[in-house]
Amino acid sequence: MHQLDQQKEYAMSFDHFFKNQLEQLKQDGNYRYFADLERKTGKFPQATNHFEGGTRDVTVWCSNDYLGMGQHPAVIAAMQEAVGRCGTGAGGTRNISGTNHDHLLLEAELADLHGKEAALLFTSGYVSNWTTLATLGAKIPNAVILSDSENHASMIEGIRHSKAEKMIWAHNDVEDLDRKLTACADRPKIVAFESVYSMDGDIAPIAAILDVCEKHGALTYLDEVHAVGMYGLRGGGISEREGLAHRIDIIEGTLGKAFGCVGGYITGSEAMCDFIRSFGSGFIFTTALPPAVAAAARTSIAHLKTSSVERMGQRAQVARLRAGLDKAGIPHLANDSHIVPVMIKDAVKTKMLADYLMDSFGIYVQPINYPTVPRGTERLRFTPSPLHSDADVDHLVVALSELWKQCAVSHVAA
Amino acid sequence: MHQLDQQKEYAMSFDHFFKNQLEQLKQDGNYRYFADLERKTGKFPQATNHFEGGTRDVTVWCSNDYLGMGQHPAVIAAMQEAVGRCGTGAGGTRNISGTNHDHLLLEAELADLHGKEAALLFTSGYVSNWTTLATLGAKIPNAVILSDSENHASMIEGIRHSKAEKMIWAHNDVEDLDRKLTACADRPKIVAFESVYSMDGDIAPIAAILDVCEKHGALTYLDEVHAVGMYGLRGGGISEREGLAHRIDIIEGTLGKAFGCVGGYITGSEAMCDFIRSFGSGFIFTTALPPAVAAAARTSIAHLKTSSVERMGQRAQVARLRAGLDKAGIPHLANDSHIVPVMIKDAVKTKMLADYLMDSFGIYVQPINYPTVPRGTERLRFTPSPLHSDADVDHLVVALSELWKQCAVSHVAA
Ligand SMILES: Cc1ncc(COP(=O)(O)O)c(C=O)c1O
Ligand SMILES: Cc1ncc(COP(=O)(O)O)c(C=O)c1O
Repeated sequence: MHQLDQQKEYAMSFDHFFKNQLEQLKQDGNYRYFADLERKTGKFPQATNHFEGGTRDVTVWCSNDYLGMGQHPAVIAAMQEAVGRCGTGAGGTRNISGTNHDHLLLEAELADLHGKEAALLFTSGYVSNWTTLATLGAKIPNAVILSDSENHASMIEGIRHSKAEKMIWAHNDVEDLDRKLTACADRPKIVAFESVYSMDGDIAPIAAILDVCEKHGALTYLDEVHAVGMYGLRGGGISEREGLAHRIDIIEGTLGKAFGCVGGYITGSEAMCDFIRSFGSGFIFTTALPPAVAAAARTSIAHLKTSSVERMGQRAQVARLRAGLDKAGIPHLANDSHIVPVMIKDAVKTKMLADYLMDSFGIYVQPINYPTVPRGTERLRFTPSPLHSDADVDHLVVALSELWKQCAVSHVAA
Repeated sequence: MHQLDQQKEYAMSFDHFFKNQLEQLKQDGNYRYFADLERKTGKFPQATNHFEGGTRDVTVWCSNDYLGMGQHPAVIAAMQEAVGRCGTGAGGTRNISGTNHDHLLLEAELADLHGKEAALLFTSGYVSNWTTLATLGAKIPNAVILSDSENHASMIEGIRHSKAEKMIWAHNDVEDLDRKLTACADRPKIVAFESVYSMDGDIAPIAAILDVCEKHGALTYLDEVHAVGMYGLRGGGISEREGLAHRIDIIEGTLGKAFGCVGGYITGSEAMCDFIRSFGSGFIFTTALPPAVAAAARTSIAHLKTSSVERMGQRAQVARLRAGLDKAGIPHLANDSHIVPVMIKDAVKTKMLADYLMDSFGIYVQPINYPTVPRGTERLRFTPSPLHSDADVDHLVVALSELWKQCAVSHVAA
């Protein structure tokens, strides 16, 4: 009994530590309140928001189900059919009874999407980045990983985990990359970067990066998470659009954003995929994705290989939103992608604006704060989809205009 | 052009390295061939196996869908309903539009399952272990993590990633743990262990471990991945069965094994869950599980809270298999769990036996080899379910008896 009391005291001291850390987050305005949503098939981007004291209808403006494929009738039907056919789970790791025929069909679809020999499926894009970079960095003797300074957390953690030497090159800066590659001439080099950076929406100069990598004989690793399904005639990403996929060693992507499901993958040579399959801890030691998820994702990918109506509709609404913001004098970050960031640069203000949009206009956009973006670069990040109507876009512009007037957020000529 | 040629040479040299590593695996008998299966609702443990040149019906004997919940009609219906209601994906990270009401209902169900204040959902059990231990170890100043020597890869990688000091205590050895805790008296201590160890099937002496941890004021972290749904009156695991859950700070589990879906979680204090929610990279930076997976998992958990027919049926078939093996003089590892390991202790032999079982008897059991188990402890690992018929069990015993005769694998008196 005494021991248990003592233990309680220790447990309380751990809890005390946790609470202090959370308190600090709150004071900095970085504590996160998740919006409790009910997505509704056929209604997207409309959703029901549960809040203290009730529910309300909102328009979601920050989903990464960029094309609304998560509610596409064919994708839904594929998932329901597969659940009925083979159940709700895979029942094991890929090695131990968990490989279903649907996984293999999906891997073939993904290899084809990027014009590669092979593909390997993971439980998420996070896990695919983390596992692949951790495994390459740890297993290739004397490897150095050259990482773009704005790479996603999943790549950063994978590189860190590998314990390989890491060199950070300035964001999208080909000359800096060249210099750094020169500095590690005789070593195996892995260059890791993204195509579309999700928070600023800027796009890497892939061709120039590849030129430099080829000059130095570096292995290239490209995260196309925010581009697959979205760019290229068949949705193969920026690397497809620019005809560069064949020059990239490893293309990584997600099934959880434009494809509307969940899961991640890499594509590349047969030997590389087999190597990660054989040595990657995050691939080996985990239950495989449900076959039904694989079936749904395959349907979504196959659909977007031949249909570009979703991409076109999406582009139209991005253009409409940007034009509306320009006309209203609301500054937004220029970029060539589908991501429309409105910079606020203050955590507390960003949350205040987001709350106001939700409460007064039924517009849901999550405040983006640290650690997702650096402190001082807090923003509202809008992701127009083909399912946002013209009226939705116009309503957003009106709401932001109102807010800009009321809150005296600094206006900048567009 | 010259550059591209040069690059191709480098890429080939990477591929050369990958191929060499794979060749080594093959020579050691550790290269893995995944069985290509089609699970079939209503037929489990029967499945269709695709092999070169055709398909055949097999009985799966190594699934971790321990209770067959992955094809339970109520679980299937819940998933199909939720897919129809809210689509195939969550559409975002938990913070950015990805929290669906189904996630919160599931978290409440999980907290209740273990009698804890709160729960936090992850994309897998691997990610829940990795993220939680990595975050605790990295954030709690001067922490030391005491890890059971047979802990799962996901915990090992999480601890490694945390960069906290790690001490390994001898497997299930309370005295060794006591000594090691004494050696780091003034530091925050986290003790990480499992309840049911999945490869040997042995069960930790949890009460004795907790006594020692309480004496030293250590935070306790218990992986119940192979026990949730399986033990305790409501499926709360070994900690429920032994009335110890309230003494454990963090209980971790999976939705991918006995619950028949996919996903992972932790449960514990409100502050602890909120802390990991706020700081855990593997929680924050990834698309949330599809709401439909959450709905299915919740249905499965709720079902197993009140129904014990699955657990009872399963225990009966475990007992039948053990009795059959004993009678046939086939040695199997003694343990108090549902896992029946037959040790072969040689990678090549284990694969040969597994191939033979598949080819001649339609019995699918994956050879378990390095790195899942240490080299020299290769085995066949059988997991009887309530859906294996008496005839299935008897057929397995007959097949193994045949094999034992033919292959002259060493017999040991049972
Ligand atoms: C650039 C980038 N890579 C990888 C991921 C992880 O992908 P997933 O959500 O499938 O885990 C994300 C976001 O979640 C991302 O933004
Ligand atoms: C002990 C243990 N913990 C965690 C995991 C990972 O759980 P999941 O399969 O949900 O990723 C596994 C196996 O996969 C395991 O055996």
